[in-house]
Amino acid sequence: MAERIRIGIVGYGNLGRGAEMALAHNPDMQPVGIFTRRDPANISPLGPDVPVHALDTIERFRDRIDVLLLCGGSKDDLPRQGPALASLFNTVDSYDTHRRIPEYFAAVDAAARAGGRTAIISVGWDPGLFSLSRLFGEVILPKGETYTFWGRGLSQGHSDALRRVPGVKAGVQYTIPSSDALERVRGGELPRLSTREKHTRECYVVLADDADPSEVERAIVTMPDYFADYDTTVHFIAEEELRREHSAMPHGGSVIRSGLTGDGNKQLVEYSLKLDSNPEFTASVLVAYARAAFRLHRSGEHGARTVLDIAPVLLSPRSPSELRKELL
Amino acid sequence: MAERIRIGIVGYGNLGRGAEMALAHNPDMQPVGIFTRRDPANISPLGPDVPVHALDTIERFRDRIDVLLLCGGSKDDLPRQGPALASLFNTVDSYDTHRRIPEYFAAVDAAARAGGRTAIISVGWDPGLFSLSRLFGEVILPKGETYTFWGRGLSQGHSDALRRVPGVKAGVQYTIPSSDALERVRGGELPRLSTREKHTRECYVVLADDADPSEVERAIVTMPDYFADYDTTVHFIAEEELRREHSAMPHGGSVIRSGLTGDGNKQLVEYSLKLDSNPEFTASVLVAYARAAFRLHRSGEHGARTVLDIAPVLLSPRSPSELRKELL
Repeated sequence: MAERIRIGIVGYGNLGRGAEMALAHNPDMQPVGIFTRRDPANISPLGPDVPVHALDTIERFRDRIDVLLLCGGSKDDLPRQGPALASLFNTVDSYDTHRRIPEYFAAVDAAARAGGRTAIISVGWDPGLFSLSRLFGEVILPKGETYTFWGRGLSQGHSDALRRVPGVKAGVQYTIPSSDALERVRGGELPRLSTREKHTRECYVVLADDADPSEVERAIVTMPDYFADYDTTVHFIAEEELRREHSAMPHGGSVIRSGLTGDGNKQLVEYSLKLDSNPEFTASVLVAYARAAFRLHRSGEHGARTVLDIAPVLLSPRSPSELRKELL
Repeated sequence: MAERIRIGIVGYGNLGRGAEMALAHNPDMQPVGIFTRRDPANISPLGPDVPVHALDTIERFRDRIDVLLLCGGSKDDLPRQGPALASLFNTVDSYDTHRRIPEYFAAVDAAARAGGRTAIISVGWDPGLFSLSRLFGEVILPKGETYTFWGRGLSQGHSDALRRVPGVKAGVQYTIPSSDALERVRGGELPRLSTREKHTRECYVVLADDADPSEVERAIVTMPDYFADYDTTVHFIAEEELRREHSAMPHGGSVIRSGLTGDGNKQLVEYSLKLDSNPEFTASVLVAYARAAFRLHRSGEHGARTVLDIAPVLLSPRSPSELRKELL
């Protein structure tokens, strides 16, 4: 391999660790450093040769990094880090606050253009691979409906909301697609489904001392935005059971396009994921798109992009002619 | 809508008719003509306003067509028509002889470059959407296996082979994925599967007068390349039943990538199709890629391309910012 793509990882939580693991399966890339806001001395990378640096020293690495993977959160980290770092580096991030994507895109785009850099935002599976499936579904079957189901999986956002309820000491929330709704959609019925009909929510909660279970349960199931519109079940469990049974981060889901062609022929397209580890899978998607960011930058394409803009061939380490021969 | 993309259809069999139907669902395109090697007087388009012309007059339409959809077959039509027409028009075709794609690509590429045209070859679902899934699978989960299953569906190639057997008056063949194999792959087992373990074949045959059923059955199930490597079942039926029960063209299948990340976490990606009409679906894919061919040509990108080269955003009639806002 002539030249390896030099990758920096910003943030070393579940996603950052997943990125480091994913790089081990991509021999055309190498991790050149982990950048953290914490004390670097307290971080132990999986690879013994990967140095850890303080994030505020990152400017010094401008000539030693081809693409930065931004592995921070969408709420507090990326709105600031995304534009700031895209003016200095090529970046790939997993910004996932759907309704704010246009403004985030604009901020990153301006910064990347000003710095002559290439940034691919909102990479992962939703937004990301699921967005691609929604696009393919509607362009191929314009007469039809798109359905997105999530789960069964652990939702970080809903677990956080759950843990803010007074009387909850710890807990997790699983999003579960309704099997009845899935069956109707897969049968080509084109149903109109309410929020309540598509998913249910299941909470596993460790109560704080002296908390009143029925009070806690009521507070959870009536919480607006998060639980009130769903059928929510609350299970109270011991702390030890939570640790033992609910510390994995599985997730998944399906995008289904159900459409009609010709004289009413039903056509069904389904893209589905079943993931043992949501952060490791998301990180694996980021790593593949780092290859595209590197190549786009080299060919002089600057500014922000999303998965919708990326030609699939740019994601592969193999040559276009080899891909035509072996995968087409 | 400012300007509609003017589409010509070459060949008016099942695929060509499917293309005409698909165009009706895409208001940014208009069918401007059907071109046939048959006598145009004998062709009745579905749309009363679509003119039918003899294929050998097509050069006269160079300035009136933006993209030609080549709806002929891969065996006899496309190897000649593809390069010849790509030197004069932007084209989209469904060339599907997998092992000859590199040489077909080279011939179309040379012709399109020489003529300053843009050609997207091998569009449809396999090759096509399934190829994309195979690519995404291996770039996201480099440590893993890709499995392609076809069916349950009517296979044109195997039905043709069946009908060439002496004593067969008429018949169709269905390809059926093994549910046991599918289950093992979906369970994350990463099995090695022989050809016989992945699919079975089911034939519905109308016997010619005086044909010996056991002789015909033996000739079918032992036919090399087509049936000998599979468990094949032959059902003899009456001509009337064949017409009544087996004249639809359903198909489908799944591409499954089963991979591992981190410390052995299983990750499963499945893309599957369930199609009432194979030709209408394939034609719908061609029509979406016509939009990309038109746009690539306008931006000066000449030569041959495949689905692997096409940025998804080019397939949609909607603007990039609208897609980011609503689909991402």
